[in-house]
Amino acid sequence: MGEITILGAGAMGSALATPLSRNGHRVRLWGTHLDDARLDALSSGAPHPGTGVRSPEGVSWFRDTELEAALDGTDAVIIAVSSPGVHDTAARAAARIGDIPIMLASKGFHRRADGTITLMPEAVREALGQPERRIVAIGGPCKADEVAAGRITSTLYASHDREEAVRAAALLATDDYRVEVSDDETGLEICAPLKNVYAIALGYADGLQQRTGQPWHNLKSALFARAVGEMSVLSELTGGRTETAFGLAGVGDLEVTGLSGRNKVFGSRLGTGETVPQARAAMDAAGLTVEGIAACGLGAEFADQAGASPNRVPLLHAIRRVLDDAGSDPHTEFSTALTP
Amino acid sequence: MGEITILGAGAMGSALATPLSRNGHRVRLWGTHLDDARLDALSSGAPHPGTGVRSPEGVSWFRDTELEAALDGTDAVIIAVSSPGVHDTAARAAARIGDIPIMLASKGFHRRADGTITLMPEAVREALGQPERRIVAIGGPCKADEVAAGRITSTLYASHDREEAVRAAALLATDDYRVEVSDDETGLEICAPLKNVYAIALGYADGLQQRTGQPWHNLKSALFARAVGEMSVLSELTGGRTETAFGLAGVGDLEVTGLSGRNKVFGSRLGTGETVPQARAAMDAAGLTVEGIAACGLGAEFADQAGASPNRVPLLHAIRRVLDDAGSDPHTEFSTALTP
Repeated sequence: MGEITILGAGAMGSALATPLSRNGHRVRLWGTHLDDARLDALSSGAPHPGTGVRSPEGVSWFRDTELEAALDGTDAVIIAVSSPGVHDTAARAAARIGDIPIMLASKGFHRRADGTITLMPEAVREALGQPERRIVAIGGPCKADEVAAGRITSTLYASHDREEAVRAAALLATDDYRVEVSDDETGLEICAPLKNVYAIALGYADGLQQRTGQPWHNLKSALFARAVGEMSVLSELTGGRTETAFGLAGVGDLEVTGLSGRNKVFGSRLGTGETVPQARAAMDAAGLTVEGIAACGLGAEFADQAGASPNRVPLLHAIRRVLDDAGSDPHTEFSTALTP
Repeated sequence: MGEITILGAGAMGSALATPLSRNGHRVRLWGTHLDDARLDALSSGAPHPGTGVRSPEGVSWFRDTELEAALDGTDAVIIAVSSPGVHDTAARAAARIGDIPIMLASKGFHRRADGTITLMPEAVREALGQPERRIVAIGGPCKADEVAAGRITSTLYASHDREEAVRAAALLATDDYRVEVSDDETGLEICAPLKNVYAIALGYADGLQQRTGQPWHNLKSALFARAVGEMSVLSELTGGRTETAFGLAGVGDLEVTGLSGRNKVFGSRLGTGETVPQARAAMDAAGLTVEGIAACGLGAEFADQAGASPNRVPLLHAIRRVLDDAGSDPHTEFSTALTP
């Protein structure tokens, strides 16, 4: 039992209070200024707008300006801010974090000031000025509202130092929030943002079904298998292992992302016949950020940086062309990417 | 261009006429006496009751008693009868088949007269009395109605003799019916019936959603990843390769089977709170055979036969207990099987 600080009061940050609280920890939930309305809700006893779940017992709330207090004397930190905010939040927290164990729930690719791209734990290490820092990455099929509500979830915690992941798992694991452990931090971090990219193609098949009134399940499943294969290729090329893509972090997380969520919804709009600008405008109007769009460009660039020739990841490049080239046809692009 | 004989006029048998016909082959579609109504429909120009699609140009129809004529002078045979009929059909056809290339679309485990269990191509070899017979197994995410309608499909053709699979692929592959090729016949044949078993657990999560009005996507995705892992274990233990479970034959086929179909529907009934006898009675009343039920018992026995200890395939054994033991609780069984 200890004090655990969660940085970021979005859906995932607030959701992790559920298993922590169930294990008897006291939780400090810190939000950026973007989280003010969420913290207002939670601290007044109302449900979190993103999960529909109230803060469990033993949670206290901290505002943007209270970062030092949120970290002071805490036993572990979970970073769960939105991915563009990870580097800055870690830099702000650096002096107080010191050698406190860090778990990282935020996912994405990070573009450095010099233009190169790296994975999220590396961004944290650079922001902290601790190049050898142990960090535990959190991945796997994990919708925040279901975690918050205590419905069964299996996640993967991965760290270059496997024992660090074992210790982190011990803090959070419950009967309903199951944690597998791995040393393949890189593989997990590759799969996490890429599944959002591939979910766009899966959504496309769902949209075709809406448009035609007929299932396109064979197409969706073929795209699914191709996506898993490409995640395994990219994992291996960037220093991770293929098997991570075949477990919770790849197959599992792609499954959950293809069942629902913004990336899938965006893709399904393309399947119904909307153009990319039309679909983007509709998502923007609904206030929904489609993470897979930014992750696609960054991911393809990261793949290039890692030396992945385009013919080893044809679906990733097909999605990039669909998003970037007004003249490309999704149907042709996606079906061509399936060529054996 | 040649003459191709399809044995079995069910949904899958009749559907394969679409790519064959598109490639200019003349198709002979032979049905058992169970297929009489289907052949009546097709030969009168009506759609197949199982796929909703009419026979394309260049198809002729043969009744149960016309097996010799259906095979006489043909260039290749596709076996697509229901799995309990495979051995007998192959035995009946043996004298005419000789060394004509065989593709096998029927899937399942086969119990020999001596009580042991084997995979479907082996059952065909034994029925033909040709122990070294080359056979091309057809797998992957392939709903028959979508193949019949010409919607995009990616399949896997696998044979111990890879070149035999390449030749078979050349007969059927079109832009819409894509064919990957492998020499892992065993891996494909393990995944094909087991995906029906695991789809019962996936359906269970869907049924929980119906019952509770809340998504259980994390659970479905965790079960999905676990199922893929177990198919890879069983593939390897029986002489196949793990990677086959991670491609079209495993991941892809499980995805399509978890999206729709009888096994998923049966599982979802358990999720809504029906007992196994209630759910079976409802499926029986609708005339729907749940292939995963028989495949579960046979698959678990085959796993034992191969020396797979139960703790390497906990979900398979959990499903077996749910189906066989009236006292077992699916929720407890499935969530326990996810224990890391």
